[in-house]
Amino acid sequence: MSGRMIGVGTGPGDPELLTLKAVKALNAADVVAHFAKRGLSGNARAIVAAHMRPDVMELPLFYPVTTEIPKDDPAYRTAIERFYEHSALAVEAHLRAGRIVAVLSEGDPLFYGSYMHLHARLADRYPTEVIAGVTAMSGCWSAVGLPIAQGDDVLSVLPGTLSEAELQRRLSDAEACVIMKVGRNLPKIRRALKAADRLRNAMFVERGTMESMVAIRLDEKSDDKAAYFSIVLVPGWESRP
Amino acid sequence: MSGRMIGVGTGPGDPELLTLKAVKALNAADVVAHFAKRGLSGNARAIVAAHMRPDVMELPLFYPVTTEIPKDDPAYRTAIERFYEHSALAVEAHLRAGRIVAVLSEGDPLFYGSYMHLHARLADRYPTEVIAGVTAMSGCWSAVGLPIAQGDDVLSVLPGTLSEAELQRRLSDAEACVIMKVGRNLPKIRRALKAADRLRNAMFVERGTMESMVAIRLDEKSDDKAAYFSIVLVPGWESRP
Repeated sequence: MSGRMIGVGTGPGDPELLTLKAVKALNAADVVAHFAKRGLSGNARAIVAAHMRPDVMELPLFYPVTTEIPKDDPAYRTAIERFYEHSALAVEAHLRAGRIVAVLSEGDPLFYGSYMHLHARLADRYPTEVIAGVTAMSGCWSAVGLPIAQGDDVLSVLPGTLSEAELQRRLSDAEACVIMKVGRNLPKIRRALKAADRLRNAMFVERGTMESMVAIRLDEKSDDKAAYFSIVLVPGWESRP
Repeated sequence: MSGRMIGVGTGPGDPELLTLKAVKALNAADVVAHFAKRGLSGNARAIVAAHMRPDVMELPLFYPVTTEIPKDDPAYRTAIERFYEHSALAVEAHLRAGRIVAVLSEGDPLFYGSYMHLHARLADRYPTEVIAGVTAMSGCWSAVGLPIAQGDDVLSVLPGTLSEAELQRRLSDAEACVIMKVGRNLPKIRRALKAADRLRNAMFVERGTMESMVAIRLDEKSDDKAAYFSIVLVPGWESRP
């Protein structure tokens, strides 16, 4: 009898933004797998710390490379593909032994999450469930109380890795925008926002919903320091009833 | 001493997708306000039913008109504006009496939610907190196990009320798309998807995460019946490592 894989969204950072369903899954799990940088325990693991059973098995999956290497670099591509293959095999071994494996995913598992790489490799062969989570972007706009989109607004989620011209074009073409993966792309993002005349409404948020959150209007932020997972919010809803 | 307003995201439908923080807010609230169509109790109210204290005051806010009237219709605009004004006054009366008012919002409060209209009118004058929730779209792609976006994908959230040409253009211009407010726009959405060559990957989801969920590939759905809040998912992530 085979086990079951559960993709568990942990939400954006505040442990209270875990869902009841996620807590239940952690209580039921024999194994908790989580992605992390080597030597670190990872944000997702920290978010669920209070709900880890003392007897649960842990399966940390350590990224082989930093995520800031461009994904079209062939060496990156080879290394990351091998990593996901090995990770899937490690999870599969537990599934074949009949265990329930909860795979943690910061935010929402199927929205830019590493869990997707396990899902794509295992979900068609083993019973699988995905527990939606609060996304990082929802956490950020809620923490700063910024209504993001309403009515007939179009909302675009843009990776900060896009070219400056492409960012500018897309910032001009949607009522509301969320820019992810800010990090060292911040100077470029700032220029694109300015060119699209959206800088004055842009809000920079780092570690949204966590105790150490930083939130500041981007046009008032005097440096270009930004964590990789910081987010820039550009609200829509200009004509409010 | 004034009270406090809490915008509470209830998640997409499954009561277990409530966050721990939302449950805590419901335990603390003196008043629970919720938007609904007249004569109905509303989805958000149903989702939190198990967490309503027996002694809590309820403040139902009944929409004066159906949400399917185009928002640029002047009569609609007047009626809905008056409704939001009156709703804000009703909430404010409780805040002035020193009460904690939890305002329920299906999905996430600041993402296309009616709560935003109260937030815009009251948050600058009364202590306010927003508790992020799992969005309807996250609930839908998780319930069907469909990875939506990864890596450098752009994701566009599109209201089904856009014109056919505009839908087609935007469907051709983003790796991943989510079409909201499907309802009677479904025939138009289908034509736009076909013209953009995205129909073959499109998934139709109604009442995602609820027990009565319907999920079907759109090119296999033989009728054009669709609830207003049904969603069409067009996944990105074509080149997977």
